[in-house]
Amino acid sequence: MDVNGTPYRTVDWKDGKLQLINQPTLPHSFGLWQTDDHRAAAEAISTMIVRGAGAIGSTAGYALALATRQAPDAEFGAYMRAAFATIRDTRPTAQNLFAGLDWVQAAIDSAGGAERPNDARDAALAAASSFADADVAACTAIGHHGAGLFQEGWGIGTHCNAGWLAFTDWGSALAPVFRNHRQGKRLKVFVDETRPRGQGARLTAWELAGEGIEHHVIADNAFGFFAAQGEIQAVITGADRVAANGDVANKIGTFGHAVICRHVGIPFYVAFPSSTLDTACPDGKRIPIEERSSDEVHWTWGLDEEGTFRRVRTTPDSSPARNPAFDVTPAELIDGLVTEFGVFPASVEGIQQIVAARDAR
Amino acid sequence: MDVNGTPYRTVDWKDGKLQLINQPTLPHSFGLWQTDDHRAAAEAISTMIVRGAGAIGSTAGYALALATRQAPDAEFGAYMRAAFATIRDTRPTAQNLFAGLDWVQAAIDSAGGAERPNDARDAALAAASSFADADVAACTAIGHHGAGLFQEGWGIGTHCNAGWLAFTDWGSALAPVFRNHRQGKRLKVFVDETRPRGQGARLTAWELAGEGIEHHVIADNAFGFFAAQGEIQAVITGADRVAANGDVANKIGTFGHAVICRHVGIPFYVAFPSSTLDTACPDGKRIPIEERSSDEVHWTWGLDEEGTFRRVRTTPDSSPARNPAFDVTPAELIDGLVTEFGVFPASVEGIQQIVAARDAR
Repeated sequence: MDVNGTPYRTVDWKDGKLQLINQPTLPHSFGLWQTDDHRAAAEAISTMIVRGAGAIGSTAGYALALATRQAPDAEFGAYMRAAFATIRDTRPTAQNLFAGLDWVQAAIDSAGGAERPNDARDAALAAASSFADADVAACTAIGHHGAGLFQEGWGIGTHCNAGWLAFTDWGSALAPVFRNHRQGKRLKVFVDETRPRGQGARLTAWELAGEGIEHHVIADNAFGFFAAQGEIQAVITGADRVAANGDVANKIGTFGHAVICRHVGIPFYVAFPSSTLDTACPDGKRIPIEERSSDEVHWTWGLDEEGTFRRVRTTPDSSPARNPAFDVTPAELIDGLVTEFGVFPASVEGIQQIVAARDAR
Repeated sequence: MDVNGTPYRTVDWKDGKLQLINQPTLPHSFGLWQTDDHRAAAEAISTMIVRGAGAIGSTAGYALALATRQAPDAEFGAYMRAAFATIRDTRPTAQNLFAGLDWVQAAIDSAGGAERPNDARDAALAAASSFADADVAACTAIGHHGAGLFQEGWGIGTHCNAGWLAFTDWGSALAPVFRNHRQGKRLKVFVDETRPRGQGARLTAWELAGEGIEHHVIADNAFGFFAAQGEIQAVITGADRVAANGDVANKIGTFGHAVICRHVGIPFYVAFPSSTLDTACPDGKRIPIEERSSDEVHWTWGLDEEGTFRRVRTTPDSSPARNPAFDVTPAELIDGLVTEFGVFPASVEGIQQIVAARDAR
């Protein structure tokens, strides 16, 4: 997508280096981050310079390609095994990270691996690029398939950031919004803050402002008000994991929004590339929910009035906090799963149709 | 309630002065604020040194009593008319503010007003004290009537601050929690932050910590997760205004919590003194909803790591925000109205029963 008139990908390859958009400083300053060292790339994943399933997957692929260029011919195999482990161990739960690594590793092996290091290097970079391109293609298709769900003038609710910063480009939940906007269809987006980490207030708001799409940031608490007032006509979110029955694990708060949508009669859609499917998981009850540091609840990060990025504590020192990072929205509350193959019902049959479309590709 | 072993009221009369708990510095530091000037008392209401319906009402009553002591005998009537207007114009929507003023003004008039200033001064202070005492008595009774709704070991959800800091003492929604705790019944309270102003994270958490009641602060987004997980067995909130059909206007986010409670099968109660009733308002659709400054969404206040109280901006400069302060929860989502006269159904009949109980007193 464009930033100040220049097109960027969240994750890209430029002049022999991996290039990322530096996300922690957003929305207050936009900057790029580059490296030719796979260890630095791994650290960018673990420190969340890059975050979001699709973006992490592409970064991991390029990181392994960087490692092939650092590996000496004489010890190519051992170096690459260590590099693979370094990148893999950055974020243990991100499914796409393993997919990106496996894709590039398979290309290295096919090209001859340690037997033919130069061929392996070329194959690794080509595979990393094709993996990133596939993520962009899936998100582009999600945009096309999802665009028809919204009508001119609608208010659209979303949650967290499932925009282009969470993928290599375009995003999942926001792709249909971007597509509609570029086709001249006017939408008004309600961007909730997404406490505790504020991905809505920080990242989704920044993405929409960049595209010139009408939007307002609201407190997470205000979602129900605008839904009940008739100002929101449809809601679309991303997904962190989708089970075989169509249950969806996503950012904490998604479940409550889905319940409100059903109560007031607003359609609730979930958008994701098929790589987010976990068909080995029968239903949402089996998806483990990570509880993150309570510091995320106690402290809020932002820019102070002198322009310094810092955090402030809102709670008493004597009060503990709890911080589940995700919740599960049962399939029966979801009106459609928007994937690169089209829009499917949230059900066992719908998931089987997505898998069949993927297998037929 | 007690603070560090000493009993306090939120609003009190000490040594000829109005004494308030200074709320903006909570939870980071506890301090008292005193004045013998009615203008300063009015400013304390408008700048929210004191907030919460019951606490504002008592403050207004004492402020008018202060004015009788400042008014010269020779121009008592004119001085008091101006003072009444100064106090009345601080927060135009707070119902209890007018009730407190009217109660004390009636006592002044009965005692002879400008004809007998000294009698009027005595009557004003006695009336302000009785108004504050009545608020405490109503909240105490709410605590008694509500306590039986909760069972040993239950997880209790609440929203915003309807504790003792919002009233003269005890509070509405938290009164049954305090009562149970003092009777030895163990409860676990889930305190949501209540963005954008954070009254849960700041005030409710501080109140519960002070009483030694087990609690955790959670993001507003996490309410649905804990409700669905079976960790919350009942929810109780306060009310800003209750219509004649039992619809309730309360802090933004209350409606969403009520919808989630109904979806997962958790009882949802609303606690308030009968002074919160607006029987002239037929239903919630007629209650005007105030949209407050968008700065409350853009900026978050707290204590930085050096101990300075300051605000940080979380949103892009280019993104606008919307900030409705209240929402309406329809009566059909409410499982009981907890008042000083008992627990009533949220319906036209239930409201009529509350009014009958008040008229019979």
